[in-house]
Amino acid sequence: MITLDLIGIGTGNPDHLTFEAAARLAGADLVLLPRKGTAKADLADLRREICARVLAGRATPVAEFDMPQRDAARPDYLAGVDAWHAAIADAWATAIAENLPGGSGRVALLVWGDPSLYDSSLRIAERLRARGLALSVRVVPGITSLQMLAAAHAIPLNRLGAPFLVTTGRRLRESGWPPGVDSVAVMLDGGCAFASLPPEGLTLYWSAYLGLPHEVSIAGPLAEAGARVQQLRADLRARHGWIMDIYLLRRDAGGNDEVSHGPATG
Amino acid sequence: MITLDLIGIGTGNPDHLTFEAAARLAGADLVLLPRKGTAKADLADLRREICARVLAGRATPVAEFDMPQRDAARPDYLAGVDAWHAAIADAWATAIAENLPGGSGRVALLVWGDPSLYDSSLRIAERLRARGLALSVRVVPGITSLQMLAAAHAIPLNRLGAPFLVTTGRRLRESGWPPGVDSVAVMLDGGCAFASLPPEGLTLYWSAYLGLPHEVSIAGPLAEAGARVQQLRADLRARHGWIMDIYLLRRDAGGNDEVSHGPATG
Repeated sequence: MITLDLIGIGTGNPDHLTFEAAARLAGADLVLLPRKGTAKADLADLRREICARVLAGRATPVAEFDMPQRDAARPDYLAGVDAWHAAIADAWATAIAENLPGGSGRVALLVWGDPSLYDSSLRIAERLRARGLALSVRVVPGITSLQMLAAAHAIPLNRLGAPFLVTTGRRLRESGWPPGVDSVAVMLDGGCAFASLPPEGLTLYWSAYLGLPHEVSIAGPLAEAGARVQQLRADLRARHGWIMDIYLLRRDAGGNDEVSHGPATG
Repeated sequence: MITLDLIGIGTGNPDHLTFEAAARLAGADLVLLPRKGTAKADLADLRREICARVLAGRATPVAEFDMPQRDAARPDYLAGVDAWHAAIADAWATAIAENLPGGSGRVALLVWGDPSLYDSSLRIAERLRARGLALSVRVVPGITSLQMLAAAHAIPLNRLGAPFLVTTGRRLRESGWPPGVDSVAVMLDGGCAFASLPPEGLTLYWSAYLGLPHEVSIAGPLAEAGARVQQLRADLRARHGWIMDIYLLRRDAGGNDEVSHGPATG
């Protein structure tokens, strides 16, 4: 029997770890640390730093393995994701079989952000169970980039008593402004999907590299801030070799529920 | 000059605190600890426990003050909230004036969950600034009940690549199922707003007292699980004198993206 702890580690800043996450990591028999390719090598370094801090003085084995890449060229997005998840499940199974002493015990897998939010660790664990692996799954929540975004700009995600939507860049680009909401958080945007919207009456709150030393934020009316973000994003991506960003779009209400404290221009 | 740290403390379980939150608390010149009335006295006890653990060995003053109550009988909801926020701002100003040594320094305010999510601390801080108080506000994210809900049921909040909406019980009751989404998280529901929906094709994931020893969860088709939740919720509220709960509703897709690992029947 294997217990798999999916541990949310937040944005990678070790200070964003919870005490519970640190305790679960320290109590693991094996820690799995996925590598995401050379461009994001500094992210793998952050995970190693978290492990080094939390596992100090312990002999816990830390097994690194290469994450399969999704074939972004496949025309059918969902079929491409399905094949990718199958490959990740293979990689997990191999890493566990090769590294877990005795084949049973507690395995900890570090998950960026929180396992509940645009993360497929739970789906991949389900695949392993479907293959017959005796697996019990537990989730340890972590701080998400969504919360870090709101903190960086010192804004609430929702207007007073109002709903908010969390969606992806792909959806925003395909479907435009979602019905029935004034606040939309956008994750997993490989480009600048906000540029596909008519900018009038929208405010953009954008951040990249949240929780890292080179964290940067821009806020303002979309018509003006959007262009700045597009330029800066291209520059940063070229400089660092990768970028992870997130943003909130708010439709102006003309009301008095605007809150802005943030040192949010970077 | 006053620096106000709004520190997300999660659901009240001290293990859900991040290292950053603990460090900010430990570095404060004054900790503000709002009391929410006798019915929720055990919640104030949890905050005291967090302070005792983090501030051990320090002389940091911890100022408790009574939170004004919102007049729920007022017919105009937003006007009632406005008056309530003004009263809270008064309470903060008084507690700071009476307890901050020298009238300047770092004040830490403990916020349930995360300051970005259905919390008005940022709006109240804005009121103090508008009154002329020299206030610099910083936000420290904390684990939210939304994340604890997903962890308790071991489910993602979103379907694969799909959006999700976060809304309130009031909105769900007034407006029915929101357009354009299959996943809806409901917070701040004083009753059981899900009971106002036609239950066909909906699955309910419900939890109460998340992070506390008497945490409880129920999941299942809304038609069946909804009735169980209504009964249990009434029983628990009578037993404990208060209840805080949250739930996710998912519209069945007939697809293969259902994930369920959880020991989620309580």
